[in-house]
Formats: sequence, structure tokens, C-alpha cells
Amino acid sequence: MALPLLTRRGDTLRYDRERGVVLVLDRREYPHETVFVECADVEAVARAVETMVVQGGPPLAYVAGYGLALVARAWKDRPSEARRGAIIQAAERLRRTRPTADDLHYIIAEGLVRADAAILEGQDAEAALVDFVNGEVSRGDKVAERCGRIAAGLLDNGDRILTHCFAGAALNWMLYVAHVEQGKQIQLYPTETRPYLQGARLTAHQALEIGVPVTLLTDNMPGFCFARGMFSVYITAADRIALDGSIANKIGTYQYAVLARRHGVPFYVLGYDGPDPSTPAGADIPIEERDPAEVLRFAGVRTAPEGADAYYPAFDVTPPDLISAIITSRGVYRPERIADYLRDGEAPLDVIALTSVPRPARDNE
Amino acid sequence: MALPLLTRRGDTLRYDRERGVVLVLDRREYPHETVFVECADVEAVARAVETMVVQGGPPLAYVAGYGLALVARAWKDRPSEARRGAIIQAAERLRRTRPTADDLHYIIAEGLVRADAAILEGQDAEAALVDFVNGEVSRGDKVAERCGRIAAGLLDNGDRILTHCFAGAALNWMLYVAHVEQGKQIQLYPTETRPYLQGARLTAHQALEIGVPVTLLTDNMPGFCFARGMFSVYITAADRIALDGSIANKIGTYQYAVLARRHGVPFYVLGYDGPDPSTPAGADIPIEERDPAEVLRFAGVRTAPEGADAYYPAFDVTPPDLISAIITSRGVYRPERIADYLRDGEAPLDVIALTSVPRPARDNE
Repeated sequence: MALPLLTRRGDTLRYDRERGVVLVLDRREYPHETVFVECADVEAVARAVETMVVQGGPPLAYVAGYGLALVARAWKDRPSEARRGAIIQAAERLRRTRPTADDLHYIIAEGLVRADAAILEGQDAEAALVDFVNGEVSRGDKVAERCGRIAAGLLDNGDRILTHCFAGAALNWMLYVAHVEQGKQIQLYPTETRPYLQGARLTAHQALEIGVPVTLLTDNMPGFCFARGMFSVYITAADRIALDGSIANKIGTYQYAVLARRHGVPFYVLGYDGPDPSTPAGADIPIEERDPAEVLRFAGVRTAPEGADAYYPAFDVTPPDLISAIITSRGVYRPERIADYLRDGEAPLDVIALTSVPRPARDNE
Repeated sequence: MALPLLTRRGDTLRYDRERGVVLVLDRREYPHETVFVECADVEAVARAVETMVVQGGPPLAYVAGYGLALVARAWKDRPSEARRGAIIQAAERLRRTRPTADDLHYIIAEGLVRADAAILEGQDAEAALVDFVNGEVSRGDKVAERCGRIAAGLLDNGDRILTHCFAGAALNWMLYVAHVEQGKQIQLYPTETRPYLQGARLTAHQALEIGVPVTLLTDNMPGFCFARGMFSVYITAADRIALDGSIANKIGTYQYAVLARRHGVPFYVLGYDGPDPSTPAGADIPIEERDPAEVLRFAGVRTAPEGADAYYPAFDVTPPDLISAIITSRGVYRPERIADYLRDGEAPLDVIALTSVPRPARDNE
């Protein structure tokens, strides 16, 4: 059983140095079609991020980083001050695309530092940016694998997993390691995740490629399924983790966390590389509100009558008291201790012992 | 501002005595198209109920009742024992269509009694059945109006109402009376209600026709909106009410009731004509499981990859401790007192004083 396409980010996005274009898998069409969108300038990159060609905190951040490289290339022969100005302006444009996930904001800020250094030293800013982002892609893939492997260790044989949206490469690794390497019998219950159907499309597809049985639910079904005892664990990713252990993730994550707690089911967050050091608490996370037109339509077809308004908050915030554990590349943290991640250092990635998280007793509050 | 089409059931379904056919508004197409499906025999009626041509506890029960009349007509010239047998067999077929809502089971049982009596007295069983169902439609319309008027009295100026699925004629009356007659400023937030989109289509359309502003949500958004304090009240119908005050209603009702309680928002149930006397508790309500294919598709278009399974429980059960009040044609009941409805008699329909239900204080449990 092979690892599916969305496991390694380098397979879904790439900077072509010869032609000066960014190639991105169109996640709106995948897996029905596997097509790559070509972005030749920063505005095309920004639009690809805004229109969900690329989705998920780390992948969209990498694509945005490559967008800065496109600007460095286009302004290569201009005076260094003009080049810096153009890159800073592009960074502002890219930052505005998606406010919630922290990866984007980290890549843009660090990318600016790298570009500045290259320009000051008379080096090739495009190359510096591409090298930096390539390194981040490679580091991110290792983070995802480590996070997913630790998560797999927490799964029991027979686990029935509720998940929401697409939790990314770490989810693929978790399913692959648990099912293929460890031979655990597990079942995945993805919500379809309106309005973009990441659950019905991406999550269901990746799990089936790994060989994990999938039972799809609409977004109004988890409550009933919890009440029937159908889930043994609830697992999602997080678009941003605050230092107080709150997480922002796809709209709906919070309501299922409330139900998980009510029905005594643990909620694990695939936390990749941990909290955002500049976000003290959940209340500090900006929640992106997207175009309500997406709620009024389904796959382009209007569902609601003319005159109906709609609301589309893309994320919600789940407080730490509803989270059993945050699983990161450095081990498993109680949410209220997640800030420790920042002090735990990079080196022991491969040696940290798996912290065992006891499952909460079933308590119907 | 006129009352929209779904307010009076007689406008959406009808028995044509001359031609011997049942005419039913196709609720799968409405409001995009207003077309009536013609059913000429009981199998066509059963299929119309099963395939959601007609939806909602009372409307589908009436159509099923008319289905019995079609059998009485077809077997009119046959010996009375054969006629009785055919009607009993048809009743069995119709009972199997939708197990959860109690109206269907009441109409079929009472219809059999009426048909038997007519046959024994040598009278026209078709006419007896049609007269009975017509009477039920007329009584049901009065029940819905009374229930909706009482509910309107509970609404405050400025209320922001979360609703799920389509709560039927009583919802229309509630909105009409509150908005048009009482001039209250109210706002309706319907969930789109996958997989059939009753919220996006029926609820949104009816409310807009009445003039109430509509903001559509996908089924994963109410939790976040509760947390933001966007709703002042949560209101749904019930497909069946048990004597212990539990209700069965469209899948999803339970999870939003859990969130309403967590965020201190009252949950009112439009209870029409009260509990089912033969259902002691919520656990006694059978939950219909429908074809999972409906979850794997959207408006006929496949959304999930081949190989994905799905689960489609059509209803869930909400326990009485999550319900603030059940609003019926005879007044407002605390859920644990709903059995009193059966003793409170029919006569005072127009004179019962409105029982005031104090709103619960906001408590974040």
C-alpha cells in the first residue's frame, strides 16, 4: 500500500527555477482530477491561495513563499531598494490572503528576512527564497511524518475515528503507520465538511488509498453518532495553536469537540510543529470570514433562493479544556502545557519517548 | 405579505375524487419548481413518501392516508373481505415507508378503523377514507396555526433564531405572526440541512416570502455561532414526541441542542399536537436509516470517491433535559410535563392562556 499523493508536500507544489513559475496541485479538483495550476506572478499565487486551489496551513504557506521568489526574479535587474520594496509589497498582498493559519505568516516574515539578507550581500534573492522554502517543505514533511507516527502509536486496534476536514500529511502518516505498518484495524468517519467538501473528497480518498475503511457522514450527523457510541476517538488538525492550548481549525471542529467531551470520547489534535509563539490565547486568533456565496451554492449550483444571505466563518476556536492532547513532532502535550514545545528543542525529534495519554473515562456531564 | 405555499397542507396535497388520483407537491423540486406529482395507486404513493417527494410528518401521513383511499376505490366492486384484505396489505406497505414520525402510524391505524366501519356498514370506503383524511388535514392546519401563534408570542423583538431542517406550517405561522402581525424584528438562521437541503430550500424560501431576513449556515457552523452569541433562541419541529419529553427530529437537532444548552440559549420545540401516547420514552423511537447513497452525492453528483461507504440516520433523539419547552396547539409545556397534553382536552384550543416560559440564564457549563 503506497502513501497517497497528499502525504509529501513536495509532490503537490514546486518552484520551477528554469521557467520561473510555481506549480500547484489544484485541491478543488483533486482527486477527481489531478491537475496542476501554474502561477507566473505573485497575484496569481495570491489568487490560488484565496480561491482554495491550495488548501491547508503548511501547503498554502509554501506556495506563498514561492510567490515572493517570483517577485525577486521579476525585479532581479532593478536597483536593490526597488527590489526590496517590491518584495515587501508582495508580502503584504500574500499576508492578506488567509489570516487564520500561522504557517503563512511565519513563512512570509522569515522569507522577508532571507530576501533582505541576500539583497544586502549582493546575492540572488530568488535563489535564497526558493532554498528557504524548499528547506521548509522538507522540514515540514519530517514534522508531519513524526507527528503522524506518534499519533499512530496512540491508536488502539479497533479504533473508530471521527475526523473533520482534511488533517493533512500527518493524518496520512497516522493512518498508514497504524493500518499498514502496525496492522491495526481502524475505521475512519470523515464529515463531508461543507462548503468545500474536503472530508468527502480529500480525506476519504487518502484513507481509501491507504486501505482504511471510510464511512462518510454529513456535518449534522456526528452528535447522533457520539450518542450511539460509534466513535472511540476524535482527531483533527489545527490551523493555529495558541500558547494557552486553544486551537483554531476548520469551522465545525468546536461543535464536535463539545460533543466528544459530553460523550467521554478523547479529542486529539494533530499539532505538527506546535504553537504559534506570537499568539497568547484562542481569543487572539483572527477568524477568516469567506465569501458567503460559497454557502449559498454547492459545487457551483445555487441551493438557496434569491434574497437569502449567508455567513461563512472558515474556522472556529476550541478551548483547551475540550482537548485531550496535542500531538506534535516532539511528542504529546496536554493542551495547557503546549507552550513547552517551544522550549523542548529541535534535536531530539527522533528520540523523544511517546508520552502516554490516558483516555478520559466516559462521563456524561 | 401573504402566507407562503407550505403553510396550508391542503394547498400541497389533494385527493382528486373524480379521477381517483393523489396530487402531491414535489418538495424535492420546490421552490425552484412548483410541480405536482400524480399518484394513481398505493405503490406510487409509497414511493412518493420513500423518495421524499413529500416530506414532513403530517404531510406524508396525509398522502399515505389518501393512498388507502386509492386501494378502496380500486377494489370497490370486489367482495368486502377481499377489499378489507387489500386495504390491510396496503396499510402494511405504507407503514414501512417511514418508521420515525408518528403521524403516519396514527393516520394508517385510524384509517383502517374508518375503512372497516364503512365496509361493514356497506358504505363507500373510499369516501370514508377521503373524508377522514380531509378532516385530518383541516384539523392539522388549525393545530399548526395555533402552535405557530403561541410560538410567536414567545419571540422577543430582536430575536435571532437558529432553526434546523424545515419545521413546517407552524414555523410559517410563527414567523408570519411575529413579523407581519406583531411587527417584531426577527432574523432566521437556517442550517442548510444536508443531504436534502430542506433548510437551504424550503425554510429559507418560506421565511423570505414572509419577509423575515434569512442568513444561511452550513451544518458545521452553529457551534461557532453559539460561541459568538449570534443566536437568542433555537427552534425546531419534532417528528415524534415521547411521553418522557424526548423528541425525535431531523439528524443534527441533538447536536445543536447540546450547544444551545452549553451557551445558555433556550431550545423550543414546535410540538404541534403533542406526544405520541404509544411512545413512553426517547429510546422507544425507531430511527430510520436511509440509503447512504444520498450522503455520497449532492443533488445527484457524486462527491465521495468510489469505495467510500456512508451512513445516513435520518433522525436523532434529543432528551428532555436539553429542551426548554415544547410549544403545542394547547399551550407551552415543560418537556417533562408533555404527557399532560393528552389530558388537557381539545375544547379550549382558542382560550388557553399562554404559559410564559422564562428564558434560562446564560450558563456556560
